Amino acid sequence: MKITCKQQDLSRGLSIVSHAVSSRSTLPILANILITTDNGRLKLSATNLEIGINCWVDAEVVEEGSTTVPAKTITELVGSLRPVQIELSADEETHSINIRSQGVNTTMKGMDPSEYPTIPSAEGDETPVQLDAKQVKEIITQVAFAAADDDTRPVLTAVYVDTRDEQLTFAAADSFRLAVRSTPLPAGARIEDNILIPAKTLTELARILPNEGTVEMIVTPNRSQVLFHTPNVDLVSRLIEGKFPPFRGIIPKEYTTRAVIETKEFAAAVRTVMPFARDSSNITRLKLRGGNSELEPGELTVEATAEDVGSSVSTVHASIDGPEQEIIFNVRYLADVLAIVDTPEVALEVTSAARPGAIRPVGSEDYTYIIMPMSANR
Amino acid sequence: MKITCKQQDLSRGLSIVSHAVSSRSTLPILANILITTDNGRLKLSATNLEIGINCWVDAEVVEEGSTTVPAKTITELVGSLRPVQIELSADEETHSINIRSQGVNTTMKGMDPSEYPTIPSAEGDETPVQLDAKQVKEIITQVAFAAADDDTRPVLTAVYVDTRDEQLTFAAADSFRLAVRSTPLPAGARIEDNILIPAKTLTELARILPNEGTVEMIVTPNRSQVLFHTPNVDLVSRLIEGKFPPFRGIIPKEYTTRAVIETKEFAAAVRTVMPFARDSSNITRLKLRGGNSELEPGELTVEATAEDVGSSVSTVHASIDGPEQEIIFNVRYLADVLAIVDTPEVALEVTSAARPGAIRPVGSEDYTYIIMPMSANR
Repeated sequence: MKITCKQQDLSRGLSIVSHAVSSRSTLPILANILITTDNGRLKLSATNLEIGINCWVDAEVVEEGSTTVPAKTITELVGSLRPVQIELSADEETHSINIRSQGVNTTMKGMDPSEYPTIPSAEGDETPVQLDAKQVKEIITQVAFAAADDDTRPVLTAVYVDTRDEQLTFAAADSFRLAVRSTPLPAGARIEDNILIPAKTLTELARILPNEGTVEMIVTPNRSQVLFHTPNVDLVSRLIEGKFPPFRGIIPKEYTTRAVIETKEFAAAVRTVMPFARDSSNITRLKLRGGNSELEPGELTVEATAEDVGSSVSTVHASIDGPEQEIIFNVRYLADVLAIVDTPEVALEVTSAARPGAIRPVGSEDYTYIIMPMSANR
Repeated sequence: MKITCKQQDLSRGLSIVSHAVSSRSTLPILANILITTDNGRLKLSATNLEIGINCWVDAEVVEEGSTTVPAKTITELVGSLRPVQIELSADEETHSINIRSQGVNTTMKGMDPSEYPTIPSAEGDETPVQLDAKQVKEIITQVAFAAADDDTRPVLTAVYVDTRDEQLTFAAADSFRLAVRSTPLPAGARIEDNILIPAKTLTELARILPNEGTVEMIVTPNRSQVLFHTPNVDLVSRLIEGKFPPFRGIIPKEYTTRAVIETKEFAAAVRTVMPFARDSSNITRLKLRGGNSELEPGELTVEATAEDVGSSVSTVHASIDGPEQEIIFNVRYLADVLAIVDTPEVALEVTSAARPGAIRPVGSEDYTYIIMPMSANR
């Protein structure tokens, strides 16, 4: 193999596929990146057997071929080079790679590329679902954080995806909260049934997706993997098996009291009680109280008390519709969602102290976040 | 105690004194910050018994008093508040503190300020040595990194400071390298003998010193502590006892070969061999070779080889004065110094493969860095 390419392109490609390199695998070759010439470009690949990433880099291919080299070493080396042209050649016998660039001459030991696991690429029978890359990044940011961290119930570490009623829906839940985002699909675009994509995979996807253009989502025919395909990057991930909780039934259809608050004010109020809530099981008490007149608006108070530390009460203006309410939430669950709401105002909908509350961006009806209340008797 | 102040001022002050808060002390009150009204300002203090920091914040003092509260909680709380006026009051009986600001009302438990250890302040007989704050920051950056990390020889964890011959000199060394920086002193400014300041203290000092103005250095009469005093911040540190190695004798008086290299080029060459040197005891081989004519300039090559990984050779232009030389250095020691040299060119002076090499910024004769060579027979 012999190619030339720009340092910047190769460095960016290496940092993208590095996301799929397993830092500690029992299979030594998985610490490597597979480098292959591919139709006049350079293809970089890595997999940790959970996810796989292919990234194509513009290059001038002088001689076809392939090799694998340690991800850490080549990423660090190429990152240290000047932003100029790089010559890269690999020895098909020894699999070692030689990199030359302005005064630098480096040889790196490699391993046999035929031993590298195959990463599926965008081929198959299913019609790809075409999505807007920037929107997919946004949806992932709004939903993936609500998935469970721990593996006790594997389906909850996933993001549920379906394409019912010409709507693409992403949902994630741990046992105490649920985030759901829907968006219209072009007519005819659909996947069979629903799929469960590991939330970690989607977080990686959001990191490497370009900010513009289209991403194609393809479920493999055997329904064990999903592939996200863009012109320069492919990410493939295993799917999680199991049945996701019937989340649509959990979303409250109505509410008793609704508060509309400036998102920034609400987020600031939550931040000021965090040092106190943290030492008290994250318990945060919200009070919604309507105003007596137009001159005296309603307010939302956010309160936390930790016996050994102290207490904090923050009050923000709110326009309240409905009777006074008091409800206790986990402060982290509030902080998480307020960090990603990007509308100027946010609505908090409450039915009673014992029923789930809902948070919705005002003026953007396609996102819903549900929080289970905590008990006041703790 | 009752005061009002600006959120920004209090927040900055808290983050400065937080550097001296001990995260895990057996004395619980050391996790607190001491807050005292002091001549119409608010004085914040913290100490971990190694260093102590006092910081004064502009405030309107309504009622004198003092208290101590947990550093982590108050720093986080004040950091979360809006940049507006804050009302702070403390109860002299319970030592609890109340903070009010735009919609926020917080009460925090405190501890008796009379139990807080005393931090010395700028009083004493010795004449302070007046230094330029920005220059002190620069000197610390150039010297402190060369001190030893581990405590096996406590004097080597210190930075040596003396004021001989109207020169202020800072020096630090571990067993393999030495950094020395001198700068002229105003006539008459001097400290008795030399002192050994913990390198960690100076790193903190560099972080909190302002970018302009004067800093006064004062050694306490019993010669156990040094105090750095500025209008808004005082830092006091214990001194290390012991005898610093006679470093002036280690500095080579002459050299056989001198290479002048562009600092950025040298630093880049060192970076490209690092992934290889790291797996090989940091061994990096330097070759200095003069050119044959004006058209064919001299060069410096930087090489590292790790048996399992590969090898890298970087070549940079250099103007060489003297015969060809080859010497082996620890790559980290080269990278450390090249990261702080701020002149466009740097000189490398070598006598032989077995003698220490010197690195000096070209055109700035007051800094010297000495590296012991490694043996080629490893």
